[in-house]
Amino acid sequence: MNTLAQGAAWVGGRVLPVGDAAIPVTDWGLTHSDITYDVVPVWNGGFFRLSDYIARFEASVASARMDIGMDTLAIKDALHSMVGATQLKNSYVAMVASRGRNPVPGSRDPRDCANHFYAWCVPYVHVITPEVASKGATVWIGKSVRRIPRDSVNPKVKNYHWGDFTSGLFEAKDQGYDTTMLLDHDGNVTEGPGFNVFAVFGNTLVTADLGVLHGITRQTVLDMATSKGMTLETRALPLDEFWNADEVFLSSSGGGVLPVARVDDRVFSNEAPGPVATDLRKTYFEWLERSDLRTEITYAQPHA
Amino acid sequence: MNTLAQGAAWVGGRVLPVGDAAIPVTDWGLTHSDITYDVVPVWNGGFFRLSDYIARFEASVASARMDIGMDTLAIKDALHSMVGATQLKNSYVAMVASRGRNPVPGSRDPRDCANHFYAWCVPYVHVITPEVASKGATVWIGKSVRRIPRDSVNPKVKNYHWGDFTSGLFEAKDQGYDTTMLLDHDGNVTEGPGFNVFAVFGNTLVTADLGVLHGITRQTVLDMATSKGMTLETRALPLDEFWNADEVFLSSSGGGVLPVARVDDRVFSNEAPGPVATDLRKTYFEWLERSDLRTEITYAQPHA
Repeated sequence: MNTLAQGAAWVGGRVLPVGDAAIPVTDWGLTHSDITYDVVPVWNGGFFRLSDYIARFEASVASARMDIGMDTLAIKDALHSMVGATQLKNSYVAMVASRGRNPVPGSRDPRDCANHFYAWCVPYVHVITPEVASKGATVWIGKSVRRIPRDSVNPKVKNYHWGDFTSGLFEAKDQGYDTTMLLDHDGNVTEGPGFNVFAVFGNTLVTADLGVLHGITRQTVLDMATSKGMTLETRALPLDEFWNADEVFLSSSGGGVLPVARVDDRVFSNEAPGPVATDLRKTYFEWLERSDLRTEITYAQPHA
Repeated sequence: MNTLAQGAAWVGGRVLPVGDAAIPVTDWGLTHSDITYDVVPVWNGGFFRLSDYIARFEASVASARMDIGMDTLAIKDALHSMVGATQLKNSYVAMVASRGRNPVPGSRDPRDCANHFYAWCVPYVHVITPEVASKGATVWIGKSVRRIPRDSVNPKVKNYHWGDFTSGLFEAKDQGYDTTMLLDHDGNVTEGPGFNVFAVFGNTLVTADLGVLHGITRQTVLDMATSKGMTLETRALPLDEFWNADEVFLSSSGGGVLPVARVDDRVFSNEAPGPVATDLRKTYFEWLERSDLRTEITYAQPHA
């Protein structure tokens, strides 16, 4: 029996079952949420857009002024060996850089900390289940909470500051909705826990530019839409304008394109996946198989 | 040799060396910073205002909608047995409640998670070293960053969302300052990493009311100031007004009252601890010894 079947972690060059991987309770990655990460999907035995995900991760690490002592090739090797050991053909693969512990007693200087890298993977995660996505998800706009502004925490450096999302998720679940999305302090649509938000107006696709993660799946959606001749607008999306969209969908590395049937009590596209989202969702799963966007994984030989 | 001399942790009823305590890499306390905590000081063999710290912790846990399955007495017992095992007479004692892992595969519902409690302690931490405090600390106001607003993450629920503080700390350290404090989006003084901020105007003490942690040490300062006949104002403190203060100091469970000599290039109280801060600092260490505010610790007998 493969003890890595439910997932694995890569820590200091060693691959172990994901449930055995932990970080110290005094690591600043935990105590200050001083940590950045990225998640690359593995689909049908290959990483999707691996170089793009690693490039964003490396940009986040640099922006956070961490030095993890590993170059691109070393990161790729770590992810390959970890996923290869699990036999997982569809996987959610996280790479993480943490500030680490401060070895100088009493120091509160982040420059003193011992930064470190680790990775972990589990079976593929859908932020919206395929069953829900096939009917169109319901989304609750957080009422008591606004998205953390970009001049407080930079959302382009992918981070674990999810307190605002968690408040929104509690509201959403209490109201019977599938997930939440948040507005910024100016009343513009931003993003939700693990996804970007798109609005469709005729042949035009609109998604937020500032105050959100520049998701790789968001970029894939923009690339797909371009290939289909759609017009793209990445800019502030006021809620008043959002309500008039023809259809709405979400994008995430955890499921690709996720159609939305309802936001609060506003029904979109006859309370079903709209034609643009349906088409892009299908194209996304086709693109996951594109050899020019994939990196095939060499899996370890299972023990006899 | 006491392997707990550098600190201990309490996890699931077991006391272990602090360096051995860790949380899983998939715990939402880490991956969503979905965690709340409190820190009670131990001074000269006794907890200070233990019931007040635990009451605030329990309020935070309730506000975060976690159930850690432990009542006040059980929390007290855990902290007692942990600190008692270390022989530490002066200690920084953290109690933590984490959302935990979600046992439902693929669930993004925070209500499904297995919440848990743990604690850890290390030798007493000064957020400003006594050497610096004796001369007056230098504080840098974060320029690229504003405090996370209270309608994004509630600062009264003590949390690990320190991304804004970390940005400010990098600025401060790069500029050669001891620490940082942040403004809110309206230009009011808020707080810094691990402390509240006070301004003294004659016989009046002003500190922020909204958008900051209601620190127990902040409350102790207010209590001490009341006992000395000072006037208290807990309200918004605009930066323009702050610049005109007679003196400035910080309050923290990690050091009590911390005089400030300079903020940016503005010198306060002749670039030395002011008389009010100096007096309150002395009183704070006296109050740490007050029997009506202390809970004595019964230390384990060291092994022969």
